[in-house]
Amino acid sequence: MFGYAGAAGIAGAAGVVAGRATASPTDARVDGGVIGQTHSPYGTHQAGIFTPKTQVGELVAFDLLPQTDKAALGRLLRAWTGDVVALTEGRPAAGDFAPDMAQPGVSLTALVGLGPRVFDLDGLGARRPAGFQEIPPMQHDRLDQRWTGGDLLVWVSADDATSVAHAVRRFVTDAAPFATRRWTQRGSWRPVDAAGAPVTGRNLFGQVDGSANPTGEDLAAAVVSSDDWLAGGTQLVVRRIEMDLTGWDEAVRDRQEAAVGRRLDTGVPLTGGEEHDDVDLAATRDGVPVIALDAHSRRSHPSQNNGRRMLRRGLNYTHDDWVGGKAVETSGLIFCAFQASIADQFIPVQRMLDQGDALNEWTTAIGSAVFVIPPGFREGGWIGETLLA
Amino acid sequence: MFGYAGAAGIAGAAGVVAGRATASPTDARVDGGVIGQTHSPYGTHQAGIFTPKTQVGELVAFDLLPQTDKAALGRLLRAWTGDVVALTEGRPAAGDFAPDMAQPGVSLTALVGLGPRVFDLDGLGARRPAGFQEIPPMQHDRLDQRWTGGDLLVWVSADDATSVAHAVRRFVTDAAPFATRRWTQRGSWRPVDAAGAPVTGRNLFGQVDGSANPTGEDLAAAVVSSDDWLAGGTQLVVRRIEMDLTGWDEAVRDRQEAAVGRRLDTGVPLTGGEEHDDVDLAATRDGVPVIALDAHSRRSHPSQNNGRRMLRRGLNYTHDDWVGGKAVETSGLIFCAFQASIADQFIPVQRMLDQGDALNEWTTAIGSAVFVIPPGFREGGWIGETLLA
Ligand code: HEM
Ligand code: HEM
Repeated sequence: MFGYAGAAGIAGAAGVVAGRATASPTDARVDGGVIGQTHSPYGTHQAGIFTPKTQVGELVAFDLLPQTDKAALGRLLRAWTGDVVALTEGRPAAGDFAPDMAQPGVSLTALVGLGPRVFDLDGLGARRPAGFQEIPPMQHDRLDQRWTGGDLLVWVSADDATSVAHAVRRFVTDAAPFATRRWTQRGSWRPVDAAGAPVTGRNLFGQVDGSANPTGEDLAAAVVSSDDWLAGGTQLVVRRIEMDLTGWDEAVRDRQEAAVGRRLDTGVPLTGGEEHDDVDLAATRDGVPVIALDAHSRRSHPSQNNGRRMLRRGLNYTHDDWVGGKAVETSGLIFCAFQASIADQFIPVQRMLDQGDALNEWTTAIGSAVFVIPPGFREGGWIGETLLA
Repeated sequence: MFGYAGAAGIAGAAGVVAGRATASPTDARVDGGVIGQTHSPYGTHQAGIFTPKTQVGELVAFDLLPQTDKAALGRLLRAWTGDVVALTEGRPAAGDFAPDMAQPGVSLTALVGLGPRVFDLDGLGARRPAGFQEIPPMQHDRLDQRWTGGDLLVWVSADDATSVAHAVRRFVTDAAPFATRRWTQRGSWRPVDAAGAPVTGRNLFGQVDGSANPTGEDLAAAVVSSDDWLAGGTQLVVRRIEMDLTGWDEAVRDRQEAAVGRRLDTGVPLTGGEEHDDVDLAATRDGVPVIALDAHSRRSHPSQNNGRRMLRRGLNYTHDDWVGGKAVETSGLIFCAFQASIADQFIPVQRMLDQGDALNEWTTAIGSAVFVIPPGFREGGWIGETLLA
């Protein structure tokens, strides 16, 4: 059992089997592990949500050009769908300038999202999904426009950054008549252990991060929308959260573990058990709660939040800025969470954390963006079809 | 036969077998492939030169603090050697703040280099290796201080960026009393095919890059110094070379292939044969040389350069700068080349290219740095011992 549900988990829960339309020599390896996969681009959900986390991810946000209307957006999404299909299957996309760089077996997925302004376009005002909204200001935010907002998103995941760079170029080039790049966020994750077996993986604090992600029916219920044209789709929050690694290092291990309520080495709750077990919020020692009142796992726990859950799929980042002739390095988490409704799920949990999470001492949101993730598609279909066709 | 020689190739050529002092459960996998390796930190040469290329690399250059003298540098290099040994073997280094992030099986190596100013320190003036010098200005350079120079280098290579980030933090933290970070360059490579078998890999032009790297005896002769304290070590040139991908895409494939003299799909010379075969510079078609006079493979070819060779081990980069409120993206190659003498090998070849390489139309050096790479070490020894002890 891993913290991150694979496609099989959600398929079972939702009664859905992703269509696999093309036979390729690597198909046999799809269920063999996490690295070196060739995923299907087809299915009820876009690939890149429930497919396993990958070593490399790049999120690219775009701004719509003024002349891009509903019809033009449809043309772009059809073109991008062609890119998604080809690149996911490991083939060069139409017009690919470096066709030899496309290859299967690199676990590539490319997920497309729609930002808030899409629903300001003529003819789309009434189609804004329920609960889809920007994150209101939080007291610990220090948002930078550089990492904030965006009308469209492409999120490419793969085993290696060279494959990702090649894919991203295709999306950016095809977008040119319709939309320009707004920001790019690059991150990494290590989703396997030394033997290649899937693991939850660690953020840059060294914490096992993702252990309590929902699985099975909980996962489908938390993430998959059943709302009108979005049925099968979901909503995504992307928060760039800077992590003060130096300050964190100065805290003793007990304090670090208390801040989350889980052990650093294994991710096991401080109340015992296995990594994927729930924290026991009622447990006390000498009359004191074992999971502190400000522990991140308590503040974000479903039981403290009306049962609200989300699927977290974050990426570690390290980034250099050139400030006054000096390289300034920052590190953190590209926090990404899928949920059926941002208003009902992410925002209340984020408020609970903003008001009393022990981790706030070392974490600061410096970027924020929200995207609707349209449902998946079958062969011949396209991303956004239920909205735009 | 792969373009990049593994440790076995050079060990054979130089009559050296790297000492493997520790038995670990992953030792058996060292010769099994490229990804998921655990390399030995010990040997005649530092690991990270002849070990296979990895998916991720981060080069960090440091400036010495004014008070860092020869003795202090020795203390730093001893501390760093401890870090190299632990991290390469997949164990936390002394004082590791996130010990759970250290793991074997991620192909990690960490290579340490010494910049020119080290040989300005009292007591080291007479030890500057022959041929070790900065690269003189070239007409196509547009060097940026941001990516230029450096008194010390640590180059961490591994399968994934999270492991690299963890290792780099250790080196930067241990350096703090002696040296501060000057620049960081992060890059990627894809050294395996879809089936996980080693391949030469491609740069962001889509070219197979590394096919003509020397192997066997040629490799040892080109790279390994026999000079005094540096015997077993080498010299490294790091050039950050921006690549104009848009301009490149506008060139037709014939012109792209002519610019190098090799096919884009396979890397095979335009004069035929297999990928690792030599280009045939004498071949003509209708009286015209098949490999153009300005082809990169001709200009850099040993036969045009007094037999001079080098070992190239580049990394692809994509980098965002924030300029006037807009993200500006640049792409290129962190060109890295090892040779026994920079003056005798790199510089003349670079001059030949600067004066007439077809690739100059799309490539511009924006950073430049040189480092002496001290010999490897045995258990109990340390990097730089032959210079500083
Ligand atoms: C850099 C910032 C953050 C760090 C380092 C962090 C780290 C962690 C860690 C280590 C855990 C425990 C293991 C696990 O279940 O994954 C956790 C759990 C969780 N986090 Fe975060 N987190 C961060 C930000 C956020 C944010 C912004 C939210 C949502 C607003 C959030 C929501 C959750 C939830 C829902 C859980 C599961 C709680 C449970 O069911 O036990 N986290 N986080
Ligand atoms: C972005 C800049 C560069 C690109 C894209 C590039 C690309 C290539 C390619 C595609 C090849 C042919 C395949 C191979 O043998 O690897 C090659 C060969 C070579 N390059 Fe470069 N290169 C670049 C810069 C340089 C520089 C700066 C030098 C040294 C000053 C250099 C030296 C060589 C050498 C020695 C060979 C092998 C020639 C032979 O023996 O056939 N390259 N390069």
